[in-house]
Amino acid sequence: MRRKEFEVSEPELTDQFLAERNDGVLTFNGPDGWPKAVPLNYVFKDRVIYFHGSKQGEKMKGLHRDPRAEFVVYQAHAFIPSYFSDPYLACPATVYFRSVRIRGLVTQVEDSAEKATALAALLKNMQPEGGHAPIDAEDQRYSASLRGVAVLRLDPDEMTGKFKFGQNLSNQRREQVAQSLEQRGLSGDADTIKRMRDSALKCPYGES
Amino acid sequence: MRRKEFEVSEPELTDQFLAERNDGVLTFNGPDGWPKAVPLNYVFKDRVIYFHGSKQGEKMKGLHRDPRAEFVVYQAHAFIPSYFSDPYLACPATVYFRSVRIRGLVTQVEDSAEKATALAALLKNMQPEGGHAPIDAEDQRYSASLRGVAVLRLDPDEMTGKFKFGQNLSNQRREQVAQSLEQRGLSGDADTIKRMRDSALKCPYGES
Repeated sequence: MRRKEFEVSEPELTDQFLAERNDGVLTFNGPDGWPKAVPLNYVFKDRVIYFHGSKQGEKMKGLHRDPRAEFVVYQAHAFIPSYFSDPYLACPATVYFRSVRIRGLVTQVEDSAEKATALAALLKNMQPEGGHAPIDAEDQRYSASLRGVAVLRLDPDEMTGKFKFGQNLSNQRREQVAQSLEQRGLSGDADTIKRMRDSALKCPYGES
Repeated sequence: MRRKEFEVSEPELTDQFLAERNDGVLTFNGPDGWPKAVPLNYVFKDRVIYFHGSKQGEKMKGLHRDPRAEFVVYQAHAFIPSYFSDPYLACPATVYFRSVRIRGLVTQVEDSAEKATALAALLKNMQPEGGHAPIDAEDQRYSASLRGVAVLRLDPDEMTGKFKFGQNLSNQRREQVAQSLEQRGLSGDADTIKRMRDSALKCPYGES
């Protein structure tokens, strides 16, 4: 049974998540027919996912042969121990998380201006403070590097968000978990409580 | 060009990494031929990767049809801004990380004792403090849950570790990056410096 209660359909929630994060796992069919999983930094810009990498290697070979890909971004927010809601059974132990899966075709960016723009956005994501010359296709000092690096774009065909913050619990049980998190007070717990109480994620399907 | 200088072949390094972490992304071929990427908690026990999940859904369907899978565990340790080693160009910006990719066949565990052992190990990974009745196939209070949950095992056929901590840099440049990290002092930077200076990861291939 697919747990539909955790799916989020609001694009602003998935877009915000993709803007906050900077790495994920790209999967594609390898030349030998086996599925491949490659962790990569990314940037989500103009509704496209950009990556960069070497021009050779299994990623380029595999995606050239079969451009179908799925990219997943995941963040674990809080481990919820079983005893937050059950004094005996281990079953309620779980992790609250956010994830977005994006399915689409991956193509190599050949246009040097688009390459430069994508690389600049990728770097800005990681190094917002600057401290380097602007990445510009016209700058001679960048032209060899720009030619040497591959930039890939994933055009999303389907995007599925799954955010789990106790939506499957009754109001009473969710409040009990929130209070236990408050007492635990690990880094991230206060943020998790806020998300649990966010009406955008409240769709009580009853106890589970 | 595959960057061989980041590959680690020592099983103790990859084993330790897998023991430290608790989530990764499982990829497999979907029934529609598209690659699928599913974030999952795991435990590495007796040289096998165990997951658990629902008995229905795309994961079970896809893996039943084609059990070939790759599972990847990734941890970003430190973002290295370009200006740590170049005052002008953006090119040296990078992320130091550890990752392990595991390729093998996934099968469903049917034996209730192995299921209970795997689930207990999965939970111990996340909830080492206990606080629940032992997960035991003989315990009546667990038997319905044990029947209801699916436990999957991935038997590693190939395991590839990639740890990037500046091994591609000259000793001088690596030391310069380490000193910049020391000055920055973000959480995790001290640990990254230790890894950069660890002889197990030092294989200077010259400047790059």
